[in-house]
Amino acid sequence: MSSSSATITSINEEILSLQNRIKELKVSKQDASAEVNSMKALKEQLKSLTKDQASDGPVASNFTLKTPKGTIDHKPEAALLRKKIFSTLEGIFLKHDASTIDTPVFELKEILAGKYGEDSKLIYDLSDQGGELCSLRYDLTVPFARYVAMNGITSMKRYHIGKVYRRDQPVMTKGRMREFYQCDIDIAGTCDPMVYDSEILKILCEALTALDIGQYTVKINHRKILDGIFQLAGVPADKTRSISSAVDKLDKLPWADVKKEMTVEKGLDENVADKIGQYVGLKGPGYDVLEKLKSDSELMGIPLAKQGIDDMEILFRYLKVYKVLDKMSFDMSLARGLDYYTGIIYEAIHESSAPPSKSTNPSVPPSSELSTKTGTKPTKPSKSKSKSGSEAVVNEDGIDESTVGVGSIAAGGRYDNLVGMFAESAGKKMNEQVPCVGVSVGVERVYSIMEMRRKQTQEKVRGKETEVFVLGLGGIELEKRMEVATMLWDNGIKTSFSPKVNPKPPAQWKQADDDAIPYVLILAPKEFAEGKVRIKAQTGRENTIEGEDKNGVEVKLEEVVEYLKERLVDHRI
Amino acid sequence: MSSSSATITSINEEILSLQNRIKELKVSKQDASAEVNSMKALKEQLKSLTKDQASDGPVASNFTLKTPKGTIDHKPEAALLRKKIFSTLEGIFLKHDASTIDTPVFELKEILAGKYGEDSKLIYDLSDQGGELCSLRYDLTVPFARYVAMNGITSMKRYHIGKVYRRDQPVMTKGRMREFYQCDIDIAGTCDPMVYDSEILKILCEALTALDIGQYTVKINHRKILDGIFQLAGVPADKTRSISSAVDKLDKLPWADVKKEMTVEKGLDENVADKIGQYVGLKGPGYDVLEKLKSDSELMGIPLAKQGIDDMEILFRYLKVYKVLDKMSFDMSLARGLDYYTGIIYEAIHESSAPPSKSTNPSVPPSSELSTKTGTKPTKPSKSKSKSGSEAVVNEDGIDESTVGVGSIAAGGRYDNLVGMFAESAGKKMNEQVPCVGVSVGVERVYSIMEMRRKQTQEKVRGKETEVFVLGLGGIELEKRMEVATMLWDNGIKTSFSPKVNPKPPAQWKQADDDAIPYVLILAPKEFAEGKVRIKAQTGRENTIEGEDKNGVEVKLEEVVEYLKERLVDHRI
Repeated sequence: MSSSSATITSINEEILSLQNRIKELKVSKQDASAEVNSMKALKEQLKSLTKDQASDGPVASNFTLKTPKGTIDHKPEAALLRKKIFSTLEGIFLKHDASTIDTPVFELKEILAGKYGEDSKLIYDLSDQGGELCSLRYDLTVPFARYVAMNGITSMKRYHIGKVYRRDQPVMTKGRMREFYQCDIDIAGTCDPMVYDSEILKILCEALTALDIGQYTVKINHRKILDGIFQLAGVPADKTRSISSAVDKLDKLPWADVKKEMTVEKGLDENVADKIGQYVGLKGPGYDVLEKLKSDSELMGIPLAKQGIDDMEILFRYLKVYKVLDKMSFDMSLARGLDYYTGIIYEAIHESSAPPSKSTNPSVPPSSELSTKTGTKPTKPSKSKSKSGSEAVVNEDGIDESTVGVGSIAAGGRYDNLVGMFAESAGKKMNEQVPCVGVSVGVERVYSIMEMRRKQTQEKVRGKETEVFVLGLGGIELEKRMEVATMLWDNGIKTSFSPKVNPKPPAQWKQADDDAIPYVLILAPKEFAEGKVRIKAQTGRENTIEGEDKNGVEVKLEEVVEYLKERLVDHRI
Repeated sequence: MSSSSATITSINEEILSLQNRIKELKVSKQDASAEVNSMKALKEQLKSLTKDQASDGPVASNFTLKTPKGTIDHKPEAALLRKKIFSTLEGIFLKHDASTIDTPVFELKEILAGKYGEDSKLIYDLSDQGGELCSLRYDLTVPFARYVAMNGITSMKRYHIGKVYRRDQPVMTKGRMREFYQCDIDIAGTCDPMVYDSEILKILCEALTALDIGQYTVKINHRKILDGIFQLAGVPADKTRSISSAVDKLDKLPWADVKKEMTVEKGLDENVADKIGQYVGLKGPGYDVLEKLKSDSELMGIPLAKQGIDDMEILFRYLKVYKVLDKMSFDMSLARGLDYYTGIIYEAIHESSAPPSKSTNPSVPPSSELSTKTGTKPTKPSKSKSKSGSEAVVNEDGIDESTVGVGSIAAGGRYDNLVGMFAESAGKKMNEQVPCVGVSVGVERVYSIMEMRRKQTQEKVRGKETEVFVLGLGGIELEKRMEVATMLWDNGIKTSFSPKVNPKPPAQWKQADDDAIPYVLILAPKEFAEGKVRIKAQTGRENTIEGEDKNGVEVKLEEVVEYLKERLVDHRI
């Protein structure tokens, strides 16, 4: 900002202050001519300054009031709903022994550099104003890995809910924003096989159930099985990840196209591709697919595949104890876009994302799918392709979400090398790798689903939690309403009243109604003098008070708190 | 990031993946020579790429793992404590009919331009990567004013807890950071005189009391009284604000220095300055100071002063109803640095901030101070000088906080012109001004006080809320512990256990102890077979279970949940 615009501000403020004083003086019929002259002089000064400034930047007095592209204000209703999503998730995470960390919204540029492949172009940099070069965080995973490596942590369950930033082309209608929330939980540290993996899946299922957004299925696969299949098929070692990323496209492209990508684009032998095609259509309930794989002696002969299959067997045993096995769909076509997954990978799909051509209940795939070892097109809902660890699933490239609803609502996997890579690239020696497994709940998608459901129920959406409106009839002074409100506040009851000294009753009823406040506490002069008030449940709401007539129920002032507390218990959010 | 560093990343990942596969192959005693050769080739490639890259930027493989200057990671204990501060404040705000909004962390550069005077140099800009020019928010007040003006809102109680950014010289030891939290509540809209003003002060007192951080005093003054005094003394209209800012320095400088600034630097007549000096030392309980002012017929002859005094009379009446009047100290030396306040102004001072030379209980100033209308030095604890509306009080310039403790813990005032100025400068016509009154709680200072108190009590600081540790003695398999944990989780009990299949009991006890988990639930093979477990309160903690011997209390498995829930109620945070 130029110094002249700083001057403009202070002159503007001076003018406003003078305007106030002139008004005051006029009200009290005093002479304001000196002030009027001062103001005129300041206005002249302002005029010439604004003219000067036109050449060295935009004039502050002519711009659009808006938020930056790809960002929005979350208004009260939206902010309150998000707050509830966060506190639901937080409750689950805390129950599972997790703690939270809060890292800066920007990191040193070099911390993010080289972590997101070609998506690095989407990173927001801070301007170089002298000092360190910084960038806004792109996800919560890299800051977590930085934190773990930096502090030499060997074991930690951490969750983090925060905004991340991607300079992507925003698609507001699809909820693809440049600023959006991520909600991650990750467990860093060694454990016996699949213990943390199973707990992350348990947490995910508890979270999705607690959010109460309807049916979901967790698609699950194992990188080692996938890599074992590639090995069996004869994929050269250095092509593993690129072939894996081709498999990952089976949710949008028919097998023929994917095969073409493998063979024509990526130079894979046709028979190698066909061998892969025999496996990637296999999916179904955990133990069913597991039995198929275990009976495949060729695949079991590949140590990598066998190890993955053994892992899955242990995992399913634990998931059964955790009572969430029935939520899983073992799906060999799930590959996940991220390079750094090393073990199990998963994605939760919401019922609204079931592809049009498929069964409406994705948790129970037709049993015929189990035998699909041919090269036919497997159908897979949309999922995240962004380059973060346990990334949010809101911001992806090139997937037409319009055909698959909101897409996946959570995703994650095991990544055993990321923290070590971090420590190593910072020249830090660590005794061993810090293996991690984590999941990210797609908060923005969950929000969309909840908002959609709320619209269907036509429930009045509230942006505040106020429970009681204190209404005064004629003759009840403001202090009386303040006094009653104080009594309610002191007892934790969320209360409001009109800010007027003598408000008309209809205006008060309107205020209570506009805010959909469930209870109105009425102070009438005669009753109040006798120590009584009336409590009335708002019409059109469920919480009509038992036995009340159209004027509400009479309650003694000293019993009001107890009376309301009993009734409010059910309305607390 | 250059494309070569993207390549480096993917090669690094390829190498890690190959390392894994080589390890697998070696474990299963298979031939890994092809993979070893691939890896060698990749390493060579990496070497030459890293060499190339050295000229066009920092090599990704050599940097310090740290957060940017002036920012910190909030570790679990700190994050949990902050979370509690926020939820305490939120609870109070929601009780008072407030809603929250969540605005983007960056705004268009022009929205912030010209709002902070010379502090504008502290604004963080985003890099120009094409598209709009943006800056990180400097406070929460300007985004609120932008929101109100942009949406044509005429009435709103809103709170906002969020991080703000100032490219200031960080002083970590004093908690002055470049990224820090603000926690604001503001009421926009017209009301009868002092209704919202008194509610904001009620909210402030409820909040500070709920935070349970010890004694505090709210210093309060009125801009109109101050301006009336200036008018009475004969300060020229265009010098009002600069003389006000001189008065504001009375907390750090003796009257002689302030007078010198007024006369020598700012060209005020000496007798004018002396007249001001007669008033600014006046302070004490609300009604006492009010009586003094009302008996001053000269001052009461100034309409502006009279209006301010009338306001204060109404305010004190309401504050008495709200039972918070005794927290106020009416202090004529309080001027506040911000230009745009138009009515009452206030600052909450914590007992730890009492200046060394003064009474140790700042809420009860010596009565002699009441008659201090001379020009002696009034002593005033440190307060915020930053240029935001209801700003946080953490980030200020040139005040030696070491002599006054953590300084003010909250500050605010009435600002009736800011939203209108905003709408106007954006060329938007609004029917009338949207008057506002608000307060900002200095979260970082509250945090410092809480942390200090916690250190004094030597309470074990926890970063998680886990309540029960499920411990298995020899012969209890992992699934049994999982099963019991599932039962506890399903009943909302925060539970953890060892991630090992066969953990040694001492290692399990250590885990429970390290996390200061209040209850250990012990599974022993024989008891468990009979449907019984033992529950033991951790030693060294208060929650010893009544009647337990050193081995804990035996409880039937089906009664465990009820048993724990009864006991955990007191330990919930």
